[in-house]
Amino acid sequence: MIEVSLSPALVIGTGLVGASVAMALTRAGVEVHLEDKRRSHALVAASRGAGTVEPVDADAVRLVVVATPPQALSGVIFEALQRFPNATITDVGSVKGVVLAALRATGADLARYCGSHPMAGSAKDGPITARADLFEDRTWVITPHDTSAAQSVLVVRKVAELCGARLTTMAAQHHDEAVGQVSHVPQLMSALVAGGLLDLPAEHLTLAGQGLRDVTRIAGGDPKLWRQIISANHRALRIELQELHADLGKLIEAIDDPDAVEAFLDRGRTGTRAIPGKHGSLPADWAEVVIEIPDAPGSLARLFADVEAAGVNVEDVTIDHDTQAERGWLAVHVEADAAEPLSAAMTAAGWNVRRP
Amino acid sequence: MIEVSLSPALVIGTGLVGASVAMALTRAGVEVHLEDKRRSHALVAASRGAGTVEPVDADAVRLVVVATPPQALSGVIFEALQRFPNATITDVGSVKGVVLAALRATGADLARYCGSHPMAGSAKDGPITARADLFEDRTWVITPHDTSAAQSVLVVRKVAELCGARLTTMAAQHHDEAVGQVSHVPQLMSALVAGGLLDLPAEHLTLAGQGLRDVTRIAGGDPKLWRQIISANHRALRIELQELHADLGKLIEAIDDPDAVEAFLDRGRTGTRAIPGKHGSLPADWAEVVIEIPDAPGSLARLFADVEAAGVNVEDVTIDHDTQAERGWLAVHVEADAAEPLSAAMTAAGWNVRRP
Repeated sequence: MIEVSLSPALVIGTGLVGASVAMALTRAGVEVHLEDKRRSHALVAASRGAGTVEPVDADAVRLVVVATPPQALSGVIFEALQRFPNATITDVGSVKGVVLAALRATGADLARYCGSHPMAGSAKDGPITARADLFEDRTWVITPHDTSAAQSVLVVRKVAELCGARLTTMAAQHHDEAVGQVSHVPQLMSALVAGGLLDLPAEHLTLAGQGLRDVTRIAGGDPKLWRQIISANHRALRIELQELHADLGKLIEAIDDPDAVEAFLDRGRTGTRAIPGKHGSLPADWAEVVIEIPDAPGSLARLFADVEAAGVNVEDVTIDHDTQAERGWLAVHVEADAAEPLSAAMTAAGWNVRRP
Repeated sequence: MIEVSLSPALVIGTGLVGASVAMALTRAGVEVHLEDKRRSHALVAASRGAGTVEPVDADAVRLVVVATPPQALSGVIFEALQRFPNATITDVGSVKGVVLAALRATGADLARYCGSHPMAGSAKDGPITARADLFEDRTWVITPHDTSAAQSVLVVRKVAELCGARLTTMAAQHHDEAVGQVSHVPQLMSALVAGGLLDLPAEHLTLAGQGLRDVTRIAGGDPKLWRQIISANHRALRIELQELHADLGKLIEAIDDPDAVEAFLDRGRTGTRAIPGKHGSLPADWAEVVIEIPDAPGSLARLFADVEAAGVNVEDVTIDHDTQAERGWLAVHVEADAAEPLSAAMTAAGWNVRRP
């Protein structure tokens, strides 16, 4: 049996993701050392139980986790392969192909490198927000390459396991296509719609409702971070965007044909149902129960107490404020079957219930 | 002074919007009669206090509100102009130009017609969900045309006022362009992204996160309803979509240029900030405080009690479930300044707080 030893480990880059991995490994008994270009970040991470900032004997290191911003990844991984001759090197970047290509171009032996992508957190955040359980039950994609040694793959699997994540294995290119489709393309399309708003008179924007806000919410993300992610995945993204460009062109052609429009809308609705539910289950048809939040101290808390007393499983909640009055509505999302009972229970408890 | 009298009034079509208008008018002391092709709808609306299903003397009617599905609007309005020779006729459809054009084509005198669009509710819903205050503090667009009599405009303004709405006046074409931009275009772009998901392997969709869910949420709307809205506004929409098609083409051209990508993303972020805040105020930078919901009965209610005790203004809340474990996180959206105090207060109260 191949022994999988992770101690001592070194985490390079102690933002949210790096520091959280370090905390999880430390919790699991691994000796973790921390490095960050901004030493204050490493010190904060250490103070939160992520490990130590003491130097480590380079020859002894068994695992290096590179958690720097996307642009720096390949350079830091390449250096780590030289600095730590007995270590498995992994990274936590959200695009894998470009990193692997840059490493291959160096001609270095990459047997000790295996990429990975824990799907939680954001590179924006510092170590102050890190937590040992950040990855629990999250998807963690491992991206071995043709020349990854078995030992390297096993070490990286072990890291994901100790972090409590759900493991998935994909080749780098496959991974990049998949996250391009489900994460980067939506980001760009959201930015496309949001950017178009700048051409509109302010008067038109006063007619904006929740739909526009939903579609454009992620476009509020950090352009400097997303620039790195998009640029690193531009080959896969160009192909995906070309397909949407063609689909949009077809819609424009047929926009005066109601049957074609309905077919387009139908396809969209079917697409929303293809997204797995939050618990990994099949997507359910949810219903919304909308309850007025009276303008009185503690009303939201009392409302929630009564929702819980109704004994239905709450999938999501949103608060909708009226545009001018300081008044709000609580929309409680429940499985379709639970809407009627919840509605009845809340009405019986004296709340003002609307169920659209 | 011109007398504005609304009694007796007739509401044709008693779905959510029609029945809610009827309830608001009844509450204001107007004598309201109800008609619906599905008589059960009119009966339900009447039972909820929207008015009476008793026939009305056609010559006496002063106001007719047409609240049928979009396709039926112009026909019903035309009939109403003949049936009720002394009434002002309005409708509550979400697209105005095509209705006006169809009416003009009949050659009828349209002095007694003035369109309107109360921006709340959805034609999907029946009278059971109606409420007299559905339009309070919502935007209500009035769309007079060149030959609308002053009396007609005043009557329709009065309807919106009695419903408690905020009035805006726009020409029909102007209105359609504006709602096309802020409502119909986002609907189609959401459907475009969602439809693209059907081409993806299920394995890729398991990597989907909240961003994709946000962008595609409204694509889950009823295709048969949206077909009518999109078709009625297809001229304005074709122009808007062509602009986005061109912008998307430019992005694809420049996807390998990081500076161009960042400029595109920057423009998107600026666009999100152009959307007025929920209270009509300038958009604020919100922050999110994320708190673990322990798996114990009543924990959500206790959590909310402590959030309220912290004394910060909650703008929105969402619940994020872990993918497999029956465990959740509550994300509380507050103004940026309030995040630190809320975080501190909740930590002090013993909750597990993360602030990304």
